[in-house]
Amino acid sequence: MSGEIFSQEHQIVYYETDQTGKLSIPMIFNLAILASANQSKLLGQGEEQVHANKNGWVVLQYDLHITKRPQNGDVIVIKTQAQEYNPYFAVRNFWLETSTGEELVKIKSIFAMIDMEQRKMIRIPQDIMDAYQATKVKYIDKIPAPQTIDATLPTVKQAYHVRYLDIDSNQHVNNAQYFDWLIDPLGTEFLQSHELVNLNIKYATEVRYGQEVESHFQVFDNQMTTVHQIKVGESINTEASLKWRKIIN
Amino acid sequence: MSGEIFSQEHQIVYYETDQTGKLSIPMIFNLAILASANQSKLLGQGEEQVHANKNGWVVLQYDLHITKRPQNGDVIVIKTQAQEYNPYFAVRNFWLETSTGEELVKIKSIFAMIDMEQRKMIRIPQDIMDAYQATKVKYIDKIPAPQTIDATLPTVKQAYHVRYLDIDSNQHVNNAQYFDWLIDPLGTEFLQSHELVNLNIKYATEVRYGQEVESHFQVFDNQMTTVHQIKVGESINTEASLKWRKIIN
Repeated sequence: MSGEIFSQEHQIVYYETDQTGKLSIPMIFNLAILASANQSKLLGQGEEQVHANKNGWVVLQYDLHITKRPQNGDVIVIKTQAQEYNPYFAVRNFWLETSTGEELVKIKSIFAMIDMEQRKMIRIPQDIMDAYQATKVKYIDKIPAPQTIDATLPTVKQAYHVRYLDIDSNQHVNNAQYFDWLIDPLGTEFLQSHELVNLNIKYATEVRYGQEVESHFQVFDNQMTTVHQIKVGESINTEASLKWRKIIN
Repeated sequence: MSGEIFSQEHQIVYYETDQTGKLSIPMIFNLAILASANQSKLLGQGEEQVHANKNGWVVLQYDLHITKRPQNGDVIVIKTQAQEYNPYFAVRNFWLETSTGEELVKIKSIFAMIDMEQRKMIRIPQDIMDAYQATKVKYIDKIPAPQTIDATLPTVKQAYHVRYLDIDSNQHVNNAQYFDWLIDPLGTEFLQSHELVNLNIKYATEVRYGQEVESHFQVFDNQMTTVHQIKVGESINTEASLKWRKIIN
């Protein structure tokens, strides 16, 4: 049995949308994390409690499926649930739904817990998982790795400088920020004629303030798949594969 | 007599804060504009109505004063009021207050109305100003120009590429985005040891998608004042002067 589902309502406002007038992808992740933060607080396992023990949650991977993005003014319901865990990994689901229960967006995610000072993974404390009532399993329901860059083919790349406002109150680049670096190099012509349907993103190492990142991509499948890497020098910080549908006007 | 004051409550959430854990400056502007959009809708003068006549509001200048920035979790009240107008310019005030009425932030702004197709200023239609009950005046209460760059001294500069996600549903760079370009070149050491108290920003021409902007600054007054220009080539798009106080730990 999985943990209880937590729900909260949210009305989309203009600054949460992108140039299409629909909820932006970074904001989808922000709203998802907001709901899980609110659930955690309710269960006495909020950021303050976790940080007090010098521990912190980090996201390792997201698998996002979009049926339809809500738009400015829409009232949606954000839902989240701790699905299952083993000693090192926790699986959490998120949904965005219309107020009548129609699924708009689904995200599956894998989290781990780290010692904030040593930046090393630790066993997830039992009392935390008990609070969420998540199922303890031997092997978690993994997310397949994103399709990887074909090293025999060239990539298109663009450099980005990590800005002061990209850093959040945890002193790291906000996870939602990576999406900006992923898609911007695709260019406006591609982005205005394609709608994202799936994003599989895997974070390997953290990008730090002041670093210069390089966002690389390759296009496959008659423009229906793009495959991405975020690199700092030779180190791969993030890998992602994105699936698209053509917008027919 | 000025127009009626419109109020709405808002709870600050984590993704609206910057690395200090306080409401970020771009988000202060987003919340202010949200309140005025909500007031306009209530008065039957929302974006849809205005755009239906191929007109649109543009902001020319903001003068922001910060007493104290609210932080993650705080419930604030956003207030706004159309103060006065003449045929071409409208003065609008915004306030962020605590729920007990303590002033946190005050913004005075100057707006104009444009023909969206010709991108030219037009006379503000009388029925619009009537709806807000703003005072008609001959000369509006202007905001002084920001302190300007000293052309005899060198500037520090940094280039920024306008990204896909910087563009809003009006197909322009969101006004709040400029602040990111203004402050990022100041560097983390300055930004972590100084708190913004006043921002006077004047928009001259619009920055467009795909353009490369250069953010220039000079420091005066024993680091208490920074003076900025956003340029595209030799054209000055935005000028701003910022006042700071030193953070004493």
